[in-house]
Amino acid sequence: MSAEPSVSPSRVGVWLIGARGSVATTAVAGCAAVTAGLHPPTGMVTETGVFQDAGLPPLSSLVFGGHDVVDCPLPKRAEALAAGGVLPHDLPSAVGAELEAAEREIRIGGPLRGDTRSEDELVEDLARDIRDFVRRGALDRAVVVNVASTEPVPEGDALPASSLYAAAALRAGCPYVNFTPSAGLHHPRLAPQATASGLPYAGRDGKTGQTLLRSVLGPMFAQRALAVRAWSGTNLLGGGDGAALADPAAAAAKNAGKERALADTLGTVPEGETHIDDVPSLGDWKTAWDHIAFDGFLGTRMVLQTTWQGCDSALAAPLILDLARLVARAHEAGLSGPLSELGFYFKDPVGDGPAALGEQYAALVDLAGRLRTAGDAEDPGPGDVKGPAGEHR
Amino acid sequence: MSAEPSVSPSRVGVWLIGARGSVATTAVAGCAAVTAGLHPPTGMVTETGVFQDAGLPPLSSLVFGGHDVVDCPLPKRAEALAAGGVLPHDLPSAVGAELEAAEREIRIGGPLRGDTRSEDELVEDLARDIRDFVRRGALDRAVVVNVASTEPVPEGDALPASSLYAAAALRAGCPYVNFTPSAGLHHPRLAPQATASGLPYAGRDGKTGQTLLRSVLGPMFAQRALAVRAWSGTNLLGGGDGAALADPAAAAAKNAGKERALADTLGTVPEGETHIDDVPSLGDWKTAWDHIAFDGFLGTRMVLQTTWQGCDSALAAPLILDLARLVARAHEAGLSGPLSELGFYFKDPVGDGPAALGEQYAALVDLAGRLRTAGDAEDPGPGDVKGPAGEHR
Amino acid sequence: MSAEPSVSPSRVGVWLIGARGSVATTAVAGCAAVTAGLHPPTGMVTETGVFQDAGLPPLSSLVFGGHDVVDCPLPKRAEALAAGGVLPHDLPSAVGAELEAAEREIRIGGPLRGDTRSEDELVEDLARDIRDFVRRGALDRAVVVNVASTEPVPEGDALPASSLYAAAALRAGCPYVNFTPSAGLHHPRLAPQATASGLPYAGRDGKTGQTLLRSVLGPMFAQRALAVRAWSGTNLLGGGDGAALADPAAAAAKNAGKERALADTLGTVPEGETHIDDVPSLGDWKTAWDHIAFDGFLGTRMVLQTTWQGCDSALAAPLILDLARLVARAHEAGLSGPLSELGFYFKDPVGDGPAALGEQYAALVDLAGRLRTAGDAEDPGPGDVKGPAGEHR
Amino acid sequence: MSAEPSVSPSRVGVWLIGARGSVATTAVAGCAAVTAGLHPPTGMVTETGVFQDAGLPPLSSLVFGGHDVVDCPLPKRAEALAAGGVLPHDLPSAVGAELEAAEREIRIGGPLRGDTRSEDELVEDLARDIRDFVRRGALDRAVVVNVASTEPVPEGDALPASSLYAAAALRAGCPYVNFTPSAGLHHPRLAPQATASGLPYAGRDGKTGQTLLRSVLGPMFAQRALAVRAWSGTNLLGGGDGAALADPAAAAAKNAGKERALADTLGTVPEGETHIDDVPSLGDWKTAWDHIAFDGFLGTRMVLQTTWQGCDSALAAPLILDLARLVARAHEAGLSGPLSELGFYFKDPVGDGPAALGEQYAALVDLAGRLRTAGDAEDPGPGDVKGPAGEHR
Repeated sequence: MSAEPSVSPSRVGVWLIGARGSVATTAVAGCAAVTAGLHPPTGMVTETGVFQDAGLPPLSSLVFGGHDVVDCPLPKRAEALAAGGVLPHDLPSAVGAELEAAEREIRIGGPLRGDTRSEDELVEDLARDIRDFVRRGALDRAVVVNVASTEPVPEGDALPASSLYAAAALRAGCPYVNFTPSAGLHHPRLAPQATASGLPYAGRDGKTGQTLLRSVLGPMFAQRALAVRAWSGTNLLGGGDGAALADPAAAAAKNAGKERALADTLGTVPEGETHIDDVPSLGDWKTAWDHIAFDGFLGTRMVLQTTWQGCDSALAAPLILDLARLVARAHEAGLSGPLSELGFYFKDPVGDGPAALGEQYAALVDLAGRLRTAGDAEDPGPGDVKGPAGEHR
Repeated sequence: MSAEPSVSPSRVGVWLIGARGSVATTAVAGCAAVTAGLHPPTGMVTETGVFQDAGLPPLSSLVFGGHDVVDCPLPKRAEALAAGGVLPHDLPSAVGAELEAAEREIRIGGPLRGDTRSEDELVEDLARDIRDFVRRGALDRAVVVNVASTEPVPEGDALPASSLYAAAALRAGCPYVNFTPSAGLHHPRLAPQATASGLPYAGRDGKTGQTLLRSVLGPMFAQRALAVRAWSGTNLLGGGDGAALADPAAAAAKNAGKERALADTLGTVPEGETHIDDVPSLGDWKTAWDHIAFDGFLGTRMVLQTTWQGCDSALAAPLILDLARLVARAHEAGLSGPLSELGFYFKDPVGDGPAALGEQYAALVDLAGRLRTAGDAEDPGPGDVKGPAGEHR
Repeated sequence: MSAEPSVSPSRVGVWLIGARGSVATTAVAGCAAVTAGLHPPTGMVTETGVFQDAGLPPLSSLVFGGHDVVDCPLPKRAEALAAGGVLPHDLPSAVGAELEAAEREIRIGGPLRGDTRSEDELVEDLARDIRDFVRRGALDRAVVVNVASTEPVPEGDALPASSLYAAAALRAGCPYVNFTPSAGLHHPRLAPQATASGLPYAGRDGKTGQTLLRSVLGPMFAQRALAVRAWSGTNLLGGGDGAALADPAAAAAKNAGKERALADTLGTVPEGETHIDDVPSLGDWKTAWDHIAFDGFLGTRMVLQTTWQGCDSALAAPLILDLARLVARAHEAGLSGPLSELGFYFKDPVGDGPAALGEQYAALVDLAGRLRTAGDAEDPGPGDVKGPAGEHR
Repeated sequence: MSAEPSVSPSRVGVWLIGARGSVATTAVAGCAAVTAGLHPPTGMVTETGVFQDAGLPPLSSLVFGGHDVVDCPLPKRAEALAAGGVLPHDLPSAVGAELEAAEREIRIGGPLRGDTRSEDELVEDLARDIRDFVRRGALDRAVVVNVASTEPVPEGDALPASSLYAAAALRAGCPYVNFTPSAGLHHPRLAPQATASGLPYAGRDGKTGQTLLRSVLGPMFAQRALAVRAWSGTNLLGGGDGAALADPAAAAAKNAGKERALADTLGTVPEGETHIDDVPSLGDWKTAWDHIAFDGFLGTRMVLQTTWQGCDSALAAPLILDLARLVARAHEAGLSGPLSELGFYFKDPVGDGPAALGEQYAALVDLAGRLRTAGDAEDPGPGDVKGPAGEHR
């Protein structure tokens, strides 16, 4: 903790689970590009006026590392993304040094095929990687962010991989963000540890496209007292996500979040299904079509259709940077437990909070105000787990 | 003013400018249908829990009349709307008595072709019609609501028809609502009278379809810091509205409101045009296509398209009933001047208020709270114009 | 066979399998309405100039009957369709007599729940119903048309219901049309009888919406040498069809036809899935969204999207009348075997023919020419099965 | 004329009016890329099996040059197109030599601002440029292709620029193709010269997107006897085309072709307008939305909507190569006058031919057959205008 931030600014680690994926690669490359002034910070809410003076760590202070089980190096992955139009063509070479630096901080994750380590051994190994990252970088703190492929809904009592990583984050004393629909810290067996850790955490399942739209359209229908009869949707996407979600169990995990978000904003569960199709030729681009049949006055039948054509990595990456900064600052300010004020970012937010995007934005603005006035907590530093602590409200 | 509302409930007049149009006909027929329990109050925000105990006049207390310059009787117009699918087939006969009753309270408007009356004579004649309506019905008060076809943007100093009606409302001591983009009370020459009247008023240009959507999508882009490059739109509509808006001057009036709403919610004025096409075969149904080109992180190009297929009359009518009740109650409670809390209903709201639908809804909920606790103002009764009064906040 | 058609016009039976369904009801009501001059023959290709003088039986000569296993009478079903907007509101009463007449000619189909009859007994019972219909009406011939709900793809050797009806048609000496994706005459065990019967037949799976579109868009891409990468689609529909197709086995049968049509017109099998969702609130209305990702010159990625909002019954019914007339006339003219010239009407046409709609239309026009010049075959009359006959080309 | 094509293959010039525009640049770069095997010939109909052995000049024999009035060199223009995603990123450098070669063959067009040359002097200067090109390259022949920006509909008797170029083509003895809606050879004053020249010509207004779609959808509705009530459309496009068409007079020229194509394929002129909006941020990408309201059986209202997102240059360029090859071969084979068999490529085809794309394709296939069997005409060589010749059929 630096008493003189202007002299020795804090350095904040961002430890990415799935560190060689599209989202992580775009976040690392984009952070470097914005820091260097090559691109404006489009899509980053923390760079808008609302967060001025909120004490967020500057983009230039972020240090990246993470776990992954694939071995395509980050610079090469960035080239592939540029070829697919996700990154500007010349960006990978322009930020090559930063990609190389992050690549050097990536460690092999787990469990691996045929892994014989116990749960506890695995968690310890993963936590050690994180602690080493913090020590090597002389970081003030690190935030662990899950951006790995969606897991199937877990069956049985064993911790799925996403929960092992979450447990490792707690053990390493790091705040945790789950940007995916996977279990992560949500697993019932981790609840006592999450509470005992006194760490802030956020999640889950980033709201980047179809659900973002639904979180403004649902309230519109509800506030206007229009009766939604059926809400149907189809998502077409390629890339790793498309393939992962072609697994019905993973798609079920994803869809559960989508449906919850819809029911929460609408107040009812309408008819209709939501499909997720793997269409490899679309690459990292996603198309989401929604068809909403609703009744107006005297039962008149009406229809709204939306088609969203977006690039999930480019939508997610700035939110990852936002979340890392916000959760790092929340940690610094002594907040702990579920950060329900970050519901703006998630399909299935932790804690109790509103479901309509407008109200979620208002809660985020409130948080910015609180962070502005908060001092720095007496921070025991990463690696030393705090004793039990109450929720932050 | 009744001290014992349960014994002698107040009767509230709704005086419609354009009383034989689609919107007016649907409002009259729908009010009767909902009162009789034939249909649920879909689309009426004032029938949701938020307005419980806010002292709004019950639907059964509303009495309809108005001005029009066409002479197709209301029951016949209702039959035509039922044939076009806007009203349920059997509704015109089911609420025939109420349609007949309203028809008897419709008077010829003005100015007529070749009319030689002075502005003041016209206003006086129109005001007399309204006062007679209130007297005949022994009404506690009446709200004047403009639902006539859109006028061209006025040139010169003369009051356009919509402003003559607005002036008549003031002279008759009635609160005024402008649901159209026409000038109405907005005309600069009426400003002193509006202030002096001490009457509450609301407007303008009801937000029923494309702009309703834009008022939730615009804030979504702004809050997520996504850069909207171009927002283009095409509206296809038939019916009277389609023909009226085929007049470029009327379309210009309409589009000004649309564009202002977009700029207000988005914070910038993006590229792109908005077309309004007269497509007679669509009848009272409207299709609005919007194409929004926006940039994500690192300049990635993305697109959202929406297609809204709605029936404007069925969208507008419940809002007319809402507004009549809200403004009548505001009058009763002693509010005066521009009711900016009703921005939820309008493209181009009077007063200062937020542009995002979510915030407008919050303001409406606040108003409900204030009305709940407000007593009844010492109401001098309709017809007697109050002395000058300050704004209500 | 009448030598003097003007004196004693031939009467042609149309025996509908699924006679109380939406399509059948619309066909019966619509035939009466067009005959009475209440509506133009929109959607009937046989009423265009191409078929003038082709000897088709006039609409006024068609007599309806059929099998069904539900017992809602035709006039009542017509009322329900009118309430749902599929039929004009006043049509059921205007053609009440014709609906009653058809209702009197509907017999219970089979097999029924717990039916103990053998396959042969069932076919005989069904065939007897058809023969009785022909005799009672003194009909020159009857065409059997399957418009029942889609069956699951049959497993095992037993004839599914649709094939029992097809066998009954053959046994009764009647030409057969399969407007559904069910097996019908397509079952391998029926092939020898179909050939031996010398009867003309047509099918299968009427091309009414999404596939109709695909049959013009597929050739467009192929002719322009544009490389289709992925063709994805979602169908939303309610009504009986939606529920039947919510059964994955029935949907599989339906989709097989859709995919075959696409592959045939496109020349390749692109990526992408086609979904069929049951959305009860849409009633008899169907919405089909297609998303086609294709490459242009130098690999440039482009997209075409289509949204079709149609009423399947209103699209299918005029084609049923077309097919009944065409197949009756083909029978009269002595044609036998698969009528590949009717591929214009089907997703998965019998015989060998082109897949592009334009070429299919040309083949239909050719058929009209041949029918124009054909005499009347020496028709042995219905009920007497012809000996083996060669294909008609 | 080479008797031994394998020894000394003919070299064919392609003289582009608008030689530094997007379409021309894409055509030159793409021809080189396909010749070099860098890309498949997607979008080139002349590279499909149908044209095998039709004697078309190989792509490697095409030599490019042309007129333009802007001075941004071709290689630089190619870089800009690559930055906008129209060309693959690495293509401009890969085909740099070919772009340079074409750039050297581009001459300043006319009339220039303040030009004092007479019509005849201008035509002579332009024709001299073309003749010089043929002589310098020792070309067997050259085809002049207009791909310049759309001109306003000409008023008065003076030849517009596009017609001056067309006259120059005739004077230089070159076949002519008009890929734009501008007047070109269509000007009444050029008709006698066109006939007298004995040269083949084709046009006008390339069918690349919305009208391509309409040319298959229109016949679909017509063939199915479905009654189209209204056909509305909006085109959004940036680039030079968007700006040029923001001029209402140019847009009128463009729309005239679109409407003619629609009326021709549909057989009627439905309600509805077509808008062309300049949206600079879309660059060379075009989005076209069509909304088609049609009636089915018994007047049931249905709707088809299409959204086409394409890159006009990438759609047009392969057609330019097709047309240059086809018209060069037609010239070689002695065809003259309007090549109505090329209606497949145009919104407003010369000569009499079918309007439905499928029939136009069949006509094109017929032409391929005729070219296959045609010998080489006694070709007087470019530069020497033939005497009057009859039409080629």
